[in-house]
Amino acid sequence: MISVVILGAGNVAHHLYKAFYSSENISVKQWYNRNIEHIASFKNETNITDDLSQLAEADVYVIAVSDDAIAELSKQLPFENRFVVHTSGSVSAYDIDMKNRRGIFYPLQTFSKSAEIDLSQVPICIETLQKKDYPLLKLLANSTTSITKKVNSDQRAVLHLAAVFVNNFTNQLYRVAHEITESQGAEFDLLKPLILETANKVQEHSPFTAQTGPAKRNDKKTIKKHLKLLDKEHHKDIYKLLTASIKQTHATTTRHNGHSNKK
Amino acid sequence: MISVVILGAGNVAHHLYKAFYSSENISVKQWYNRNIEHIASFKNETNITDDLSQLAEADVYVIAVSDDAIAELSKQLPFENRFVVHTSGSVSAYDIDMKNRRGIFYPLQTFSKSAEIDLSQVPICIETLQKKDYPLLKLLANSTTSITKKVNSDQRAVLHLAAVFVNNFTNQLYRVAHEITESQGAEFDLLKPLILETANKVQEHSPFTAQTGPAKRNDKKTIKKHLKLLDKEHHKDIYKLLTASIKQTHATTTRHNGHSNKK
Repeated sequence: MISVVILGAGNVAHHLYKAFYSSENISVKQWYNRNIEHIASFKNETNITDDLSQLAEADVYVIAVSDDAIAELSKQLPFENRFVVHTSGSVSAYDIDMKNRRGIFYPLQTFSKSAEIDLSQVPICIETLQKKDYPLLKLLANSTTSITKKVNSDQRAVLHLAAVFVNNFTNQLYRVAHEITESQGAEFDLLKPLILETANKVQEHSPFTAQTGPAKRNDKKTIKKHLKLLDKEHHKDIYKLLTASIKQTHATTTRHNGHSNKK
Repeated sequence: MISVVILGAGNVAHHLYKAFYSSENISVKQWYNRNIEHIASFKNETNITDDLSQLAEADVYVIAVSDDAIAELSKQLPFENRFVVHTSGSVSAYDIDMKNRRGIFYPLQTFSKSAEIDLSQVPICIETLQKKDYPLLKLLANSTTSITKKVNSDQRAVLHLAAVFVNNFTNQLYRVAHEITESQGAEFDLLKPLILETANKVQEHSPFTAQTGPAKRNDKKTIKKHLKLLDKEHHKDIYKLLTASIKQTHATTTRHNGHSNKK
């Protein structure tokens, strides 16, 4: 049984609490938050506190607070040489105060209060600064998800960056599609099955082979028609840039195959 | 029972054939393709032909060929005043030769040979130039999918354009994430659950409320870190443009609420 103290009460903390609490191998000894009201509804399930001096002893302290608050909170911990990890994709393990042993427990997923997430399907990227702490953190991750991955800080930074492309930027493309359809009397809802299928397709195929559409075919007529339909400049800019990006990706390969798109 | 002749043998034609063939209300009378070899394997299930002069009589002729070939093929049809539809998102119904009654049967999905698609979950956008043909086309669509939608040509053009954003452009963002991760020793596969969840989230929530991340938070430190990590100029361009787009989307609303992001 791994004993854990969770620090923080944001989306990640809530999802981790739920997964830890329901795991047979993990005991949530305590849940800390500066503002105890945010976790008050859990007081019958676990020990809650807003007082750092009252922190219980545990195998792992999981700091799940905003990036900017990690260093400061870790400094305030009233103990030494215990094992402290944070859950951020973009903060270094060295940002945790060096009086404790340090590591990373980064679930690669987008969390929000409203959406239920099955953490057992979420990759957890782990790293420890000291080798001897690794087996315990691996056990904690394995007790939470089926996809545990040892990831160093450089790789984690790259994954966090790539996650912005596939999550935030993709979602913004959905938003643009929402603006385009709703402003011209069409229904965004009709695009939802296509959105799902686009995400499904790259579960099995590479994004390269999954690509279709006017940019890949270099279908100038359709591209021209589309640019004419767009009335906002920044929608046009996105269309042009991503069309050029697709052309670049697929033209290079065509040339490698000895065929040229140029006529 | 609606009798149908399919013309063409691309991805859309194949998926429509399968859906029509398995529907209780539809009889595929014949399948035409210029090159009969592409449909030869279906000759025990349906009548196949490569000869337009041999086309069978049917309630609906479904032209599922590439956009540029629709007008020409419709001209070559050796009959008049029958009901002919095409399946394209961006071609006008008026491109079908006027000697026949005309309509649109546009399934809003991405089709490829390798990926199985359940057409019953795909929205089919329909339109007829003559009112009297509408009930039949609606029945054909209803026998194929649970999501039938009457869509005029302007709305269809907008949906086709929006589909490029949520499908081709989104897929290109996956591709960029693939390039970034693989070039720096991280695994693209770790992003797959996040890709799925991003698509899942907007099935229930609007893209506006689903948004998270450094651009929405205007987290300049992380944005700077990310731009430093990107080494290709065109990756940087995409990052900058979509970050600006997210900021614009969310800053406007913040201002409407009386709060400003500017400090």
